Amino acid sequence: MKQCDVSLYLVTDRELSLGRSHQFIVEEAVKGGVTMVQLREKDISTHDFYQLAKELKKVLTPLNVPLIINDRLDIALAVDADGLHIGQSDMPYEVARQLMGADKIIGLSVETIEQAREANQLDVDYIGLSPVFSTMTKTDINTPLGLEGIKEIASFTKHKTVAIGGINTDNAGDIIKNGADGIAVVSAIVSQENPCLAAQKLKDCLDEAKNIQSKA
Amino acid sequence: MKQCDVSLYLVTDRELSLGRSHQFIVEEAVKGGVTMVQLREKDISTHDFYQLAKELKKVLTPLNVPLIINDRLDIALAVDADGLHIGQSDMPYEVARQLMGADKIIGLSVETIEQAREANQLDVDYIGLSPVFSTMTKTDINTPLGLEGIKEIASFTKHKTVAIGGINTDNAGDIIKNGADGIAVVSAIVSQENPCLAAQKLKDCLDEAKNIQSKA
Repeated sequence: MKQCDVSLYLVTDRELSLGRSHQFIVEEAVKGGVTMVQLREKDISTHDFYQLAKELKKVLTPLNVPLIINDRLDIALAVDADGLHIGQSDMPYEVARQLMGADKIIGLSVETIEQAREANQLDVDYIGLSPVFSTMTKTDINTPLGLEGIKEIASFTKHKTVAIGGINTDNAGDIIKNGADGIAVVSAIVSQENPCLAAQKLKDCLDEAKNIQSKA
Repeated sequence: MKQCDVSLYLVTDRELSLGRSHQFIVEEAVKGGVTMVQLREKDISTHDFYQLAKELKKVLTPLNVPLIINDRLDIALAVDADGLHIGQSDMPYEVARQLMGADKIIGLSVETIEQAREANQLDVDYIGLSPVFSTMTKTDINTPLGLEGIKEIASFTKHKTVAIGGINTDNAGDIIKNGADGIAVVSAIVSQENPCLAAQKLKDCLDEAKNIQSKA
């Protein structure tokens, strides 16, 4: 059985980590409540990406937290990661699924309502709604989906949804209240002085929003 | 049985191809005598790399010429390429072999005599000696091995050898005379007005040098 709890999903970024290692950030973040970790690397050699992935796999396996690799299926296979996250410019989903196998998690970024509708034809394990708000982390972003976009997609998608882009403790609750299953964050954890505490605070926001929802 | 004739090995480069497609260049080059083709792409999305690889595979399969993918094992698997070429900063050889399987070609770039000695411990299908001369094609090059380096490596390696870097009709024969099994070229084919004729001329140089060698 695949374990795919997208509620508090950490996406790594070395440049935003204030010089601290992925291992440090990830261990602290998991202590604080992170449920899934995605290793995202650009402009790095395959060898270095492989090494980082291997190190994170070693940290996360005993913690029982899935490691997802962004884009690079070769790295995912090489370290036997728990899954792969693909964007619209990455490997086509069908090819990725065939090579990864049915037991692995595959997440897909959708940037528009239309892409979210198309994703209903695929047996992805979750869709990433990207970006919900504008952000400085990614440079190739589309128009933000906004809370309205999240709400609309949540109304028709058959997949788990995780929103990403500009999410912090101020707006995390709104994401859940509008129907997403989880939030994915970069700087709201990796750039914080105390990544464990940062994760805890985000988790508190999610729990509070879920309580309100379940009582509504 | 793996078909791995490295004698005239074309490495693609879109930026040096004078605006012409890989398909055009490759078809012409194979007509002229190219025995193997490596698709090398940097700064391209996984999706676009995959598409290019799929197109080249379609061109090369009926011509019975192996398609080798540079660095990206995911692309190699996705298009069922004939092989993978790895450099010293790419996937470790053992991991690549395990994922590619025994039936696929794996080539490894070596940039020093020491790396060539280390490669004797691996069951790679060929080693690329890189660079033999200085070149404008790659920016991250080490000191050229020179003809002396080729000669020394050829004296002890157990692998097929293909030299790359600054090779053209003026020096192709010298590479063979110094013991390499083949030459790999980029601009000496892709940047030429007539890639077929360019390949033919290189092949003539190789044949002539091999004749001289066999008579010596």
